Amino acid sequence: MKKDRILKTLNNINRFGKLEKGVTRLAFSKEDREAREYFISECKEEGLEVRIDSFGNIIARREGTDSNLPIVAFGSHLDTVVEAGYYDGVVGVLAGLEIVRRMNDRNYKTEHPLELIVFACEESSRFNIATLGSKAMTGILDDNIYLLKDKEGKSIEEVFKECNLDISKFQDSKRTKDEIKVFLELHIEQGPILENKNKSIGIVNGIASATRLTIEVCGQASHSGSTPMNVRKDALIGASEIVIILEKIINDEIKDGTVGTVGVMNVSPGIMNVIPGMVEMKVDIRGTSTASKKYLEDRLREEIDKIARKRNLSIEIRLISREEAMFLNEKIIEQLKVSSNKLNISYEILHSGGGHDAMNMGRLFPSGLIFVPSKNGISHNAAEFTSLEDIKIGINLLEEAIIYWANSNNKI
Amino acid sequence: MKKDRILKTLNNINRFGKLEKGVTRLAFSKEDREAREYFISECKEEGLEVRIDSFGNIIARREGTDSNLPIVAFGSHLDTVVEAGYYDGVVGVLAGLEIVRRMNDRNYKTEHPLELIVFACEESSRFNIATLGSKAMTGILDDNIYLLKDKEGKSIEEVFKECNLDISKFQDSKRTKDEIKVFLELHIEQGPILENKNKSIGIVNGIASATRLTIEVCGQASHSGSTPMNVRKDALIGASEIVIILEKIINDEIKDGTVGTVGVMNVSPGIMNVIPGMVEMKVDIRGTSTASKKYLEDRLREEIDKIARKRNLSIEIRLISREEAMFLNEKIIEQLKVSSNKLNISYEILHSGGGHDAMNMGRLFPSGLIFVPSKNGISHNAAEFTSLEDIKIGINLLEEAIIYWANSNNKI
Repeated sequence: MKKDRILKTLNNINRFGKLEKGVTRLAFSKEDREAREYFISECKEEGLEVRIDSFGNIIARREGTDSNLPIVAFGSHLDTVVEAGYYDGVVGVLAGLEIVRRMNDRNYKTEHPLELIVFACEESSRFNIATLGSKAMTGILDDNIYLLKDKEGKSIEEVFKECNLDISKFQDSKRTKDEIKVFLELHIEQGPILENKNKSIGIVNGIASATRLTIEVCGQASHSGSTPMNVRKDALIGASEIVIILEKIINDEIKDGTVGTVGVMNVSPGIMNVIPGMVEMKVDIRGTSTASKKYLEDRLREEIDKIARKRNLSIEIRLISREEAMFLNEKIIEQLKVSSNKLNISYEILHSGGGHDAMNMGRLFPSGLIFVPSKNGISHNAAEFTSLEDIKIGINLLEEAIIYWANSNNKI
Repeated sequence: MKKDRILKTLNNINRFGKLEKGVTRLAFSKEDREAREYFISECKEEGLEVRIDSFGNIIARREGTDSNLPIVAFGSHLDTVVEAGYYDGVVGVLAGLEIVRRMNDRNYKTEHPLELIVFACEESSRFNIATLGSKAMTGILDDNIYLLKDKEGKSIEEVFKECNLDISKFQDSKRTKDEIKVFLELHIEQGPILENKNKSIGIVNGIASATRLTIEVCGQASHSGSTPMNVRKDALIGASEIVIILEKIINDEIKDGTVGTVGVMNVSPGIMNVIPGMVEMKVDIRGTSTASKKYLEDRLREEIDKIARKRNLSIEIRLISREEAMFLNEKIIEQLKVSSNKLNISYEILHSGGGHDAMNMGRLFPSGLIFVPSKNGISHNAAEFTSLEDIKIGINLLEEAIIYWANSNNKI
């Protein structure tokens, strides 16, 4: 009854942080810790040797016939955005567990050791920075980590203490290039392409990265009734023009598939009879083309400058992050195509618009990323859905790939 | 030392709810109640007979030589918006007290009795409805009052209980037409016209009223990286188009001086990597011309309909209120002109963009409204400022008008 086992694990994980609709399991929160505890106990039940690294990443090892060979690793994350769906991250983690269970069921031994990894803090919802756990593991973090505060102003040091972790030891989680042979991640697409093309699997060849900006528009708060239109400095009108112009310049640049979004817009003082004096916005520009993102960022800055001058507003732009896109290992992509054909799975080669732990892992280790379809392309939302059938196809392909790379005859 | 007396009272009132910058004294809050208590004690010190009506309006009476004559009333309010300045409302109240003090200083008796009124809950910041106290006094409120909740969800019934008031008795605060001969209010302009025209006094001939709408824009929350631009239903882009189009149609209609503002815009879920699924906006359209406001509301609804269709968004518009403008008493306006000339005061006849208690009082009693200049036109903001010199000119004019109307020879 494999069907029941996968669904049961999915639902068990999503008991933690469950809302009336969807789930909220912010990184390092009580709900996240409980979900992780549950998952660790399931791993131990399957005989995996579990350790938690200094950044809170869970590493569950299944020994190979030759324990000195480098590891074949796979995994994803359990933390979520606010009011998330059930599938983002969770699918990749439970896929790994299901593959271990299948191997145990048939007493299958791999040559290379395996590691199922649950990365800590993949979502940016808590600290405004995504994939922290895999960044720590691949040595991308620096001492700026000490400055992080969550949205309630709690420092990462405090948050780590609550999890019995010590942030000053974050460097200990770094692994070396020779430890891991390949890393493979299974994830939901979080977009509509597979559904629209009626494909079961997406084999990802590149992961888009984001340029993120904070924009602070300052005008003059004033009475909404007694301030004539021509003397106003309405920060919200300026901010709205920025929202509109961002969409326009992105659409003009559509050939590279770069996308741009204003997800945050806080209006002050936010009262019906007061002209907004200040608006804080956060902009996210994503794509795999560094040139396209740079071009769009420059265009946006030009347009913002025009808006500021035209409307007599003071607009400050602060860079939050500017990350490079990552291209996945070509040998792994080829092997996934071969396995898909062998298993009779329809697939599409595509980019990933969302960032994933595979993005960081891929900078240090040969890595692959497999997508399963998202219904209506919806993600980061309670309506997120991937059918059990599609999840199983993804698990079958991931299992094939793990078995292939866990064979020492297959060189990377 | 009259100068010290006015400033001292101003500062004493603004001790209550004082912030690092500005003051917050929301209606019926602890800070508001404390300011009122202070003001009542000052009135009593001047020998005024103080009562509080069933809606919390403070009525401080100074007896006339003929106590049977109708009252000459004057006053304003002590409650404020969030992060308010020191002058809005307070100036009118302390002007009344100063005039009483002056009369006491010179043992001056008026023929008609006088009443200094502090209206309760003038600002809409707590219950989203402005000038509640003067509405109660003039019988404009109906049983819908029972439905009011403040922004934290507290019912008006509870709020009244905290103030030792009983909302079920709100009708008892209603006064009859023959009780009050004239009502006069002194207030800061809250706009830039007097300053720009270099005038000391504004004599108001009409008070603009507001049409207020809540607009709920519903799209589809989705991942900001993996959702292609052409399949998005971004509620914030739709909302931004509404902000822009409102300004455009208002500017096209500029001849009637109607203004329009989006002061509130709440974006959900409000996370950097999620396309906004829902935006709630509040719109305020103000003017003295009912036709102009109606025309603009209709135009806005048409444009919103186009935006909804073009962007595949579901947009709901709910009417919060649609009030009629009020024109002030012509005899009172004429008398204010005469007194201004007599006192050598430069004045401007103008509309009021903001609502005031005189708007409600004027529907039942002959009423007048006097403005003093606001520096840079700024109001509802800590930077609000009116010079003591200008306040004194306003007090002098108000005193003249009170003395004129408190003489039974001067018929209204």
